[in-house]
Amino acid sequence: MSSLPEKPACRTPSFLVLNSPDPPAPWHELTGSVKHSLLSHGKKLGSFSKCITLASYALFPVLQWGRNYDLKMFRSDLLAGLTLASLGIPQSIGYANLAKLDPQYGLYTSFVPPLIYAVMGTSRDIAIGPVAVVSLLISSMIQKVVDPSLDPISYRKMVFTATFFAGIFQASFGLFRLGFLVDFLSHAAIVGFMAGAAIVIGLQQLKGLLGINHFTNNTDVVSVIKAVWIAVHQPLHPGNFLIGCSFLIFILITRFLGRRNRKYFWLPAIAPLLSVILSTLLVFVTKGDKHGIKTIKHVQRGLNPSSAKQLQLSGPLTGASAKIGLISAAIALAEALAVGRSFATIKGYQLDGNKEMIAMGCMNIAGSLSSCYVATGSFSRTAVNFSAGCKTTVSNIVMAITVFIALQLLTKLLYYTPITILASIILSALPGLIDLREACNIWEVDKMDFLASAGAFFGVLFGSVEIGLSVAIIISFTRIILNLIWPRIEILGRIQGTDIFCSIRQYSVAVRTQGLLITRINSCFLCFMNANYIRERILSWVIEEKDAMENAKERTRSVIIDMTNVMNIDTTGLAAIEDIHKKLASLEIQLAIANPGWQVIHKMKKAKLVDRIGRSWIFLAVPQAVEACLALKRESGHLC
Amino acid sequence: MSSLPEKPACRTPSFLVLNSPDPPAPWHELTGSVKHSLLSHGKKLGSFSKCITLASYALFPVLQWGRNYDLKMFRSDLLAGLTLASLGIPQSIGYANLAKLDPQYGLYTSFVPPLIYAVMGTSRDIAIGPVAVVSLLISSMIQKVVDPSLDPISYRKMVFTATFFAGIFQASFGLFRLGFLVDFLSHAAIVGFMAGAAIVIGLQQLKGLLGINHFTNNTDVVSVIKAVWIAVHQPLHPGNFLIGCSFLIFILITRFLGRRNRKYFWLPAIAPLLSVILSTLLVFVTKGDKHGIKTIKHVQRGLNPSSAKQLQLSGPLTGASAKIGLISAAIALAEALAVGRSFATIKGYQLDGNKEMIAMGCMNIAGSLSSCYVATGSFSRTAVNFSAGCKTTVSNIVMAITVFIALQLLTKLLYYTPITILASIILSALPGLIDLREACNIWEVDKMDFLASAGAFFGVLFGSVEIGLSVAIIISFTRIILNLIWPRIEILGRIQGTDIFCSIRQYSVAVRTQGLLITRINSCFLCFMNANYIRERILSWVIEEKDAMENAKERTRSVIIDMTNVMNIDTTGLAAIEDIHKKLASLEIQLAIANPGWQVIHKMKKAKLVDRIGRSWIFLAVPQAVEACLALKRESGHLC
Repeated sequence: MSSLPEKPACRTPSFLVLNSPDPPAPWHELTGSVKHSLLSHGKKLGSFSKCITLASYALFPVLQWGRNYDLKMFRSDLLAGLTLASLGIPQSIGYANLAKLDPQYGLYTSFVPPLIYAVMGTSRDIAIGPVAVVSLLISSMIQKVVDPSLDPISYRKMVFTATFFAGIFQASFGLFRLGFLVDFLSHAAIVGFMAGAAIVIGLQQLKGLLGINHFTNNTDVVSVIKAVWIAVHQPLHPGNFLIGCSFLIFILITRFLGRRNRKYFWLPAIAPLLSVILSTLLVFVTKGDKHGIKTIKHVQRGLNPSSAKQLQLSGPLTGASAKIGLISAAIALAEALAVGRSFATIKGYQLDGNKEMIAMGCMNIAGSLSSCYVATGSFSRTAVNFSAGCKTTVSNIVMAITVFIALQLLTKLLYYTPITILASIILSALPGLIDLREACNIWEVDKMDFLASAGAFFGVLFGSVEIGLSVAIIISFTRIILNLIWPRIEILGRIQGTDIFCSIRQYSVAVRTQGLLITRINSCFLCFMNANYIRERILSWVIEEKDAMENAKERTRSVIIDMTNVMNIDTTGLAAIEDIHKKLASLEIQLAIANPGWQVIHKMKKAKLVDRIGRSWIFLAVPQAVEACLALKRESGHLC
Repeated sequence: MSSLPEKPACRTPSFLVLNSPDPPAPWHELTGSVKHSLLSHGKKLGSFSKCITLASYALFPVLQWGRNYDLKMFRSDLLAGLTLASLGIPQSIGYANLAKLDPQYGLYTSFVPPLIYAVMGTSRDIAIGPVAVVSLLISSMIQKVVDPSLDPISYRKMVFTATFFAGIFQASFGLFRLGFLVDFLSHAAIVGFMAGAAIVIGLQQLKGLLGINHFTNNTDVVSVIKAVWIAVHQPLHPGNFLIGCSFLIFILITRFLGRRNRKYFWLPAIAPLLSVILSTLLVFVTKGDKHGIKTIKHVQRGLNPSSAKQLQLSGPLTGASAKIGLISAAIALAEALAVGRSFATIKGYQLDGNKEMIAMGCMNIAGSLSSCYVATGSFSRTAVNFSAGCKTTVSNIVMAITVFIALQLLTKLLYYTPITILASIILSALPGLIDLREACNIWEVDKMDFLASAGAFFGVLFGSVEIGLSVAIIISFTRIILNLIWPRIEILGRIQGTDIFCSIRQYSVAVRTQGLLITRINSCFLCFMNANYIRERILSWVIEEKDAMENAKERTRSVIIDMTNVMNIDTTGLAAIEDIHKKLASLEIQLAIANPGWQVIHKMKKAKLVDRIGRSWIFLAVPQAVEACLALKRESGHLC
């Protein structure tokens, strides 16, 4: 087809490329990847009993570290657990309020899940319990289906069902090593989402802080501000606001002191409990509940009742519950893994993502059967746990036992606790969710990531939780698809005195070789999405160069396509390469291919493209291709 | 952070990488790509009048080639045009029947659109008119909204509206250079889709061939076979079937003769017209229409009436029309571009995809205003046009004029034409749509592409046209996403006697360097989707190697990550690299980065990752990194 003289087939440059063995078939490739991620580190399994031992060690890490557990470690864990409980109890009640559940459900969620996690989890620092964002997620999504103020029983049933599904999803993510599904929420998206959710949660707290009776069920900023605007024009008791604000200021001051001096780390940790006690006393003494101060009133005494019969695993709402379960499962895992990983890095141990997911799944399944809603690792409490010097998950057990004692003995004391204090406890925990420094960092490093982050933020703020998440995922994927559709195609030049060929745009010292056009396709796929673009881009360069250099001696005689980056090709991509070859042949320009990937050379052989281009024009690396092209140029120069 | 000795900063290996200028910002990058594809070949524009001239030349290629047009070319075009008309007139009537429109609408569609295309199109061979697949698409989608047998006027209105939208979409694809949207239908998907559609169309023809009165509106195989089964158990006139079959055999024999002997190419081209004439005569003579043979009966005489007032650009059905318009626009463009490109390659000229789209768009907009439905380039007629020796689009004009004459003079003669003959003409054109050889080829070369192809085929066959298309697009994208999620990570080795480092799996001659782990990430993105997978894969290798080689002298002392293929990174990817660095530092292993892409090194600098890894551990190429790592090994060897 080409009118150019074919270079005699010499063994060296093309032989290796053309004679590599066939690559593994695509499904082999895929199953290989899956298998690798299934059998962690490819451990060989022995006898059946050894299998059982290994599996139980894998499922219950407590069996491993439990053997080395000593009194000294327990002392640390006891202290950390008590500190944790003093923060956890008021937070749990507050988050239950945010999830539109009665206060005891928050306490239940701080009892069963931490116990399960303690024996199954691999993180030593994570503090388990209800968290703000998941509470918001649950209430904002479920109240669209069932109104909690009109039908609290159905609402609760749906909460438990969603929790059950969340557990099932989390455990199966872990079992089938589907952790990558959680990865679809990129770090940047999580940062934006958390910040947006924190603001939404903060605005929701205005209800409690101001003691508003009627409030919107929507979570977006516009509806909430409108509702607050209407409410403040009606008579409100200033006591709620006064108590809430003063204790909020108190908690913030203790936090400031705790940060200034590491020795006082316990001060911000016990400040919420202290606030609850003081405010309850205040209301009790002043009989504030008779004068318009809203109080918690009745809290059910006793241990978690069973909720197994309340799960609705069939019926019209099951689909909706499963969807809500899936979203909360993903968000809960993303938060827990982020928290767990960052503290594991500080202490220098490895967190096994898949085991974590199984542990979280089991604890939420168990939770859904014992009147808990979705629990996960909390940012603020994990930090307190870490600062208090926890050594193992025993601190979670200590906390759970303290919560149990509180449930048995102290529920009556909560009768006079003002609701506004819960709002201030939640508000005080929110700044930790807004990571401005990280947002700046993302803006600095990667503008497109920042866009995803901002999308999630504004989506949550002005739309809803789901809109925020969808926007972030769509932006992240669009960016990748756009990069695939319009890949960069570089012209390469030689770095003087070396055999290294680099992009002449990136490295100004790289010099082009006369009579040669060396291009590199910067995309890992040459496929239906970008084949036409790549073909037209390369051909337009060739034609430009041809028009620019009419002088016959200087004209481009060879085009080298460096395929180093192209990992895979499809039939559309193969057709594009063939079109380029045909067009170049009609212009009397030789095409050379350098360093095609394994799949690429395999498919080029299958499609007989190798023979059409010429077997001797496929090279292992760019320098060899350049040499061959220069030899061709000299040859034809002699002929002229 | 690392306890290893830092290599003194020497200018050569890292200097170039670290001091390359900043890459263009992402939007700059994107607008650059768009701009490039907008201004074809980056032509500079001059004065206003020159602008106008250039624009009119670009829009109306006839102005360019028209000046060199001579009598000899016209003689060729005249012959080709007449041959085309003899095939086109019966096919147009048949396709109108397939689109559930009256016969004259097929003829209208063969009159206006070819005239517009003749002055705007860049292909010299394409024959414009109604085609089978688009006719099926239109009827199958619109009859779900409006039943053509109950309300033919509303049905027709919706057809014209969909045609109008199809034209608008096509023209804007061309104007805004959005041709890549058509690329989302990969070559393999089109092959599968066409084959499935051909079978569906063939089954639909059983209605005409058997003379069935009541037939299903569904297009899937199961419904159609059920309808045929019911119909054949009712009394049918065998005359329809006999006439249809005998003329089908006649057409197929002429085609066989035409293929055997190139001289008789005109025989299959005029066979349909001949069949129409002969069968009409037969019915007229035998008075078959009185004995159960179904005939076309009335065909409206005269030129295309205006249909501008029938467009429904507002109202409840506009959204549905726009959607149908979009799908038919994409399919019509995909077919026309595939046809046009293949014949352009044979004749050795370039087809401008964007101009083609503008031309197709304009002709369909004009068509929708003059009672035409969606026209495009037809496979079978283009082949006839080419064989008949067409030189320019003038053959389309000749055909259009012939159709015009037929509309003025010959409509009355169609009264006795049996409907069954239309079925046999359509049936005879179908084998050309089923490209078994190409399907085998796709299976041979790329199994995943074949899966997309098969998905489209079975989706169309057993579901509907839309299901088939969606399945194909979903399979194509899933494959790319899966490859991104689980990229291959290779261990590299040196090819003895060279400085080339290759995958040790692909090239068995490549040899690993002792004490060194060289890995290459085979993905163009290191992002949220795969960062965790890549990190765990690399770290698990390091730990495996560490466990395997307990001998202190042989242990891995350095890990080189070859980032040649990584074009872009996001904050999650940067965090993964940092995690790898930290973990390696804790194992006293040095990390070196080789050949990071432009965006990658830029973001690593921004994120201060370069400083944490050590500026002297970033290299331009793998050989330099290997050298530095070996030097480090010798150094520490001396220290031991």
